This record gives sequence, structure tokens and C-alpha cells, in this order.
Amino acid sequence: MNVTRTQVGIVGGGPAGLMLSHLLAKQGISNVVIESRDHDTIANTHRAGILEQPSVAMLTDTGVDGRVLTVGDEHEGINLRFKGESHLLNFPELVDATVTLYAQNEVFIDLAAARARDGGDVRYESEVTEIFDLKTDTPKFRYRSVAEGADPDALQEVHCDVLVGADGSRSFCRRAVRDEPGHQDFTTEYPFAWFGILCEAPKSFPELIYANSPRGFALISQRSETVQRMYFQCDPNTNVDDWSEDRIWDELQSRVAGPDGFELKTGPIFDKTVLPFRSFVREPMSHGNLFLAGDAAHTVPPTGAKGLNLAFADVRVLFEALDSFYSTGSRALLDSYSDTALRRVWKAQNFSYWMTTMLHTTAEENPFSTRRSLGDLESVTSSVYGRQYLAECYTGWPNSRP
Amino acid sequence: MNVTRTQVGIVGGGPAGLMLSHLLAKQGISNVVIESRDHDTIANTHRAGILEQPSVAMLTDTGVDGRVLTVGDEHEGINLRFKGESHLLNFPELVDATVTLYAQNEVFIDLAAARARDGGDVRYESEVTEIFDLKTDTPKFRYRSVAEGADPDALQEVHCDVLVGADGSRSFCRRAVRDEPGHQDFTTEYPFAWFGILCEAPKSFPELIYANSPRGFALISQRSETVQRMYFQCDPNTNVDDWSEDRIWDELQSRVAGPDGFELKTGPIFDKTVLPFRSFVREPMSHGNLFLAGDAAHTVPPTGAKGLNLAFADVRVLFEALDSFYSTGSRALLDSYSDTALRRVWKAQNFSYWMTTMLHTTAEENPFSTRRSLGDLESVTSSVYGRQYLAECYTGWPNSRP
Repeated sequence: MNVTRTQVGIVGGGPAGLMLSHLLAKQGISNVVIESRDHDTIANTHRAGILEQPSVAMLTDTGVDGRVLTVGDEHEGINLRFKGESHLLNFPELVDATVTLYAQNEVFIDLAAARARDGGDVRYESEVTEIFDLKTDTPKFRYRSVAEGADPDALQEVHCDVLVGADGSRSFCRRAVRDEPGHQDFTTEYPFAWFGILCEAPKSFPELIYANSPRGFALISQRSETVQRMYFQCDPNTNVDDWSEDRIWDELQSRVAGPDGFELKTGPIFDKTVLPFRSFVREPMSHGNLFLAGDAAHTVPPTGAKGLNLAFADVRVLFEALDSFYSTGSRALLDSYSDTALRRVWKAQNFSYWMTTMLHTTAEENPFSTRRSLGDLESVTSSVYGRQYLAECYTGWPNSRP
Repeated sequence: MNVTRTQVGIVGGGPAGLMLSHLLAKQGISNVVIESRDHDTIANTHRAGILEQPSVAMLTDTGVDGRVLTVGDEHEGINLRFKGESHLLNFPELVDATVTLYAQNEVFIDLAAARARDGGDVRYESEVTEIFDLKTDTPKFRYRSVAEGADPDALQEVHCDVLVGADGSRSFCRRAVRDEPGHQDFTTEYPFAWFGILCEAPKSFPELIYANSPRGFALISQRSETVQRMYFQCDPNTNVDDWSEDRIWDELQSRVAGPDGFELKTGPIFDKTVLPFRSFVREPMSHGNLFLAGDAAHTVPPTGAKGLNLAFADVRVLFEALDSFYSTGSRALLDSYSDTALRRVWKAQNFSYWMTTMLHTTAEENPFSTRRSLGDLESVTSSVYGRQYLAECYTGWPNSRP
């Protein structure tokens, strides 16, 4: 069996895995990344992304590429819309921060290009089959190529000091240790999903609109000057084929209607999809010399725009721990990685849950909750402290705090 | 039948009814209050009270009595305690405000004395039997004396311009119109109750402590320098007789234990009680010329300390509406009373729900929620905006906002 020896073995070549690989390489720490999909599949799988400033800085300050600054769209706020009125949260005024709309697949493209440019060892179409010896100084994993024509029985092995599972929400690495004593999964399911569309139309509004309406939540987001992304709360069993363009526009428009006469700018819809979502956390985020990062350890509802930012925050903490380990020999930061990362994870879970419950409607099951959510929105928007608190959660907590 | 003619008929002589009566009398607006209990029963029914500054001002600025300033205990903050650590929210620093601990029965005593001093018409031991003609210009109610030896068949009738139901959480007035079209009750039940004690002991800590612990919520409150009030989350079916003093102290101490070695100061327990609670709102808060105020229209869990303050806020809005009605003839403020009051009510419901869910534990049913609550506490206490937002909610929103 072909064996590769490296310092850090990284399972998963999405933004989290590649960012960690990039940061480690800059410090001269060798690493190998395996990723089951091929480069172009990931590059072409569009996923919305809202980057906090520290996430943008991780790209621009480490020599990845400045494309996020030119292609990305800096936003100075969001609108909370309820009772038919929009309430702007101006982030620079409130908390001296902004966010940047930049799709997650664009982040991947930039990071993959940087790894290729710098001679990174990223093995696409490579599927992990086993991870083992996690509690030793030499954790290992095996993988096989799933490229067309590859021999499915030809396994490769990687030996490393530290193994990182950055392999997404269906993480092989996480599942491999789920039955270990002391490990626990925390989950919340939601009784709704998002119906998402992409359409050819101009922007309806300068900022994103998060709308709470009697018919349910809607998010008026953007992809570019000519392509828009919108979502509305739906039943998880919704079949997109039951929804004509007219019906979709009627539904979206009804959820942002108000005395101000706000109207969506419409256009041909070229993508329809239903996104179920849930909240999930694995504790602890490490097991021996296996460390989980990003979606492999936790998933959040998209309402708080925290997914990729939380993955990058994990990577920051883990990179500092690995850097300390290799420069001083001390395991202290590796040992505290899970606790440190989880403090931010649970804050982000709380914010995502808050945004989700505040903006979605469960009128039929719980009329009290629907009224209370409007009270929540009134309370936040009518208080400068409330606006600042929400703006800080949305734009990201300072890095000095977990 | 003996008929009394007055401008405003008030059913309920608790703090809300008496405060409204007091304010109206000062403006020369005649009113009659009926109250089913006798004065001494209310005066001696101890109920904890935390007054926002505007509530204190309503007592001191309208000539009630300054006793709230001498007997009441001004507090400059609260402690949120979790993971065994206390986090002080310093209200003056955060939002330039304080709260005052002053029992609700003391508020009653002061208001009852002021009404007696000023010749107010407050009829104790008078039980309402009927309210009617609510949609006319002369709503009416009947009542009978329940004083010892009174004839239960001897009814009295009161004719007024406006009828106010300030008759508490079991409000006769609210129930009388519950089946009217357009009326809706909103309710949330909680799967826990509070076990409350009074004990002879010194204060354990300068400020109140709201503790989230793995064993559940605890509130370390105060009544005086020598008598303390404490609560801990319990099953609603708890029998106080099953709880010895030792068991109670062990339970309370376990909920505030931490690395800081904090210990409660103990002493003889002379009162034990289980308080179930729920969130409730009646919409609208008016029906024709009947207006509901305070607990008659809404109840909140005690965790947010909003009950009496919300009742006083209703009274403020209703008094201004009545004052406007009698001085200008315009019904505009009376017509908007329900909407105006409900905006604050739902903010207070939201805050009370937030404090309750953030601090109580439902670990067995929902481990995710328990972890998320700790994330909520981390999020709030680690952010100056979060601390300010919670402090503003706790100390009360400015009166210019509903």
C-alpha cells in the first residue's frame, strides 16, 4: 500500500480544509488534503455566502487573492421587515463593521487556486475509507481514488501527527467516532424548510431583506447586479414542480407587502430548490488526535449567515493550536481546541436559532409564539442597544473572543 | 337597587386599579373602585416586587408617599450566574438606570392610604356579579357586598362612561367578553414551576442572582436585611411538604455552586410555596367601553420582573387616554389604547420568555436547548451591547416608547 507521511492530514477540501491547509503551508507545516469530489463540481455548486470581516481578512491578509474585494459585494446593513415595514440595521453606524456577499464556491475557487499556486498537496476525487490509530501519536487514514477508471481496491494510506476532519455535514470522520464514550450529538429540527430560487432580475433593494410576515419568512438576497437569490419559508415536503413562476412571485411578493408599497423586481426563475435545515453540534470537537472543524462538527440554520464564518473561526483556533504545537511542542492549545471552538459555536447556534425563530412563523401550531416573535422584532429594532447587539452577532464577534 | 353614577368605574382595587383611581382623582375625574377582598387581606398577602424607575416615579411624583424611597431597596444591577460564575450587569453603567425592590403589597398599602387620605371611593369586599351595556355610552356593572353579615341578594349598580377591568389574572371582566368576535387569548405553559421560600437570614449577596445550573434555575432574591426570598425551578406537581429545610438548602446551594466557592447564607425557613406560571395575553385589551389593564389582560412569568411594571404602564396609557377624553372629548387615545398597550406587552412577554428559557433547564427533554441557553448567556454577558440590551429590558423601556 502506498503510504504518505505528513504532519497534518486533512479530510475534506472545502473552504475549511483548504484554508487550514493554506495557513499551515505558510508556516511550513506539511499537510495533505483529500477531497471526495473533483474541483469543478465544487467550483460549480453554487452556495450563498455572507462573510464577516474577519473571514474576508483571512482571505486577503494571507495572500489568497483579492477577488473577494472586487467580486464580493460589501453590505453596510440588513433590513428586518415586519408588519409591512422595513427597519434598516446600519452596521457601520451600529458596530463599525460590514459584511461581504461572496458565494462559498467562489471562496473555494480562490483557496483551491492558492493551494495549486503554492504547490499544495490537494488530492481530489479521493474518498476516505477508514481512519484509525486516533489516540496514538500517528493517526492514520486510508482512501481510494474515485476518479473515472481508478481501481476501487487500490487504497492509499496517510500517516500524520494530527488528523483534521473538515469533511462537511455528513462527515465520515465524525461518524467514525460517534460511539466513543463521552461523545454527544445535539440536534434541533425545524418544522419548515426554505424554498430557494435564482432569477434573472435586478436588485429589488440595496440591502438584504429578512421578512417576517403572516404567511411566513422570506429572504430577499442577491447574487449579482443581474441575478437575484430569494427564499421563502415552506413545508419541508414541498415539491418545487408544484410551483409555477407566477405562484412563486405571488408568494414572495405577499411576504414583503406593506403600506410602503414595496414591490419585488421579478424576472425568469432558472433554479428552484427546497433546503431543509437543522441545528447540530457534536461535542467534543476532538477525539485523541482527530480534530473536527466546520460543518463536520456543527451545522446552523442559514438565517444567521454563520456557517462558513464559523468554519473559518474553527480553522483559526485550530491553526493557532497546531502552530503552537509545532513551534513549542506544547499540546495545551490542541487540548483546549474543542472548548475554545465550542464557546463560539454555541453563541452562533444561539444567534442562528434566535434569528430563525424570530423571523419564521408557526402561527397554526403556536399563535403565542408568532405574536412573541413580533414583540422580539419590535424590542430589538426600537432599541439602539438591541440593534447593536444583533448587528454585532451578525457581523461577527471580535476574534479575541471565542 | 342602589345606583351610583360616576365617570370611570374600576373593577379591581389592586395596585393597577388604585393607581388609575388616584391619577384620575387628581385630574378631577370621578371614579369608583370595587374590590372583592378586604384591605388587610391584600396588605398582608406578600408578593415580591421589582419596580422600574418609571414605576417608582409614578408613586413619588403623584403624591402617593415616599415610603418606596425609604423602605424600598434600590438595586444597581443583577447577577447572571452560569457555569459556576457570576456576571454582574451594572445598570447605572450600562443604561443609567436602577430598579427598586419594593413588595407589591407595600405598593398597595401606599396607594390605598393615598386614596383614603384623598377621599377616594374604594369599596372593599365588593364582588362584581355582572357587567353590561359595554357598547353603549353608559356601561354598567353590578356588585354585592361579601362582607360578613351582608345580604348576598342586595345588589348595587354603578353607571359610568368607561369601565375598567383591573381585576387581576382571573379577571371577571375579561372572562365576561371572552366569546366576543375578534377576541383571542394567547397562552404558553411552561413545564416547570418555582419553589419559593422565605427565610430568616442575612443577604447572601448585594444583588439578586439569577442562576442557570445543570440542576435548574435558582433566584436568590431578598426581602430585607434579615429576611430573604429564594426560588428554585421545580416540577409543577412538587409537594412542599416533601421538602425539609436541609433538602431545600442543599438544592439551592447546588444551583449556585461554583469554582468561586460562593455559599448561601442560610436560616430558618418560615414560608414554602410552589408557584406555577404561564404567559398569557388577551387581545384586544378593550371591548366597547370596557378597558382591561394589568394582570386582567396579561400575565408574564416572574423571571423578567415585569408584572407590576407592565400593569403601571397600562395605567399610564389608559390614564392619558381618559384625561384626553374628558378634556377634549376625543376618543382617539381610548381607541388606540389596546394597540399602544399591546406593543409594550408583547415586548415584555418576549423579554420574560427570553429570561425564562435562557435561565431554566429542560435538559432531559431537550439537551440542545440547554446548551443553547448557555450560549445565549455567554453571548449576552460577553458583549457590552448584549449587557446593555438586557439591562434596558430589565430596567424598563423609556416611557415615550410603548
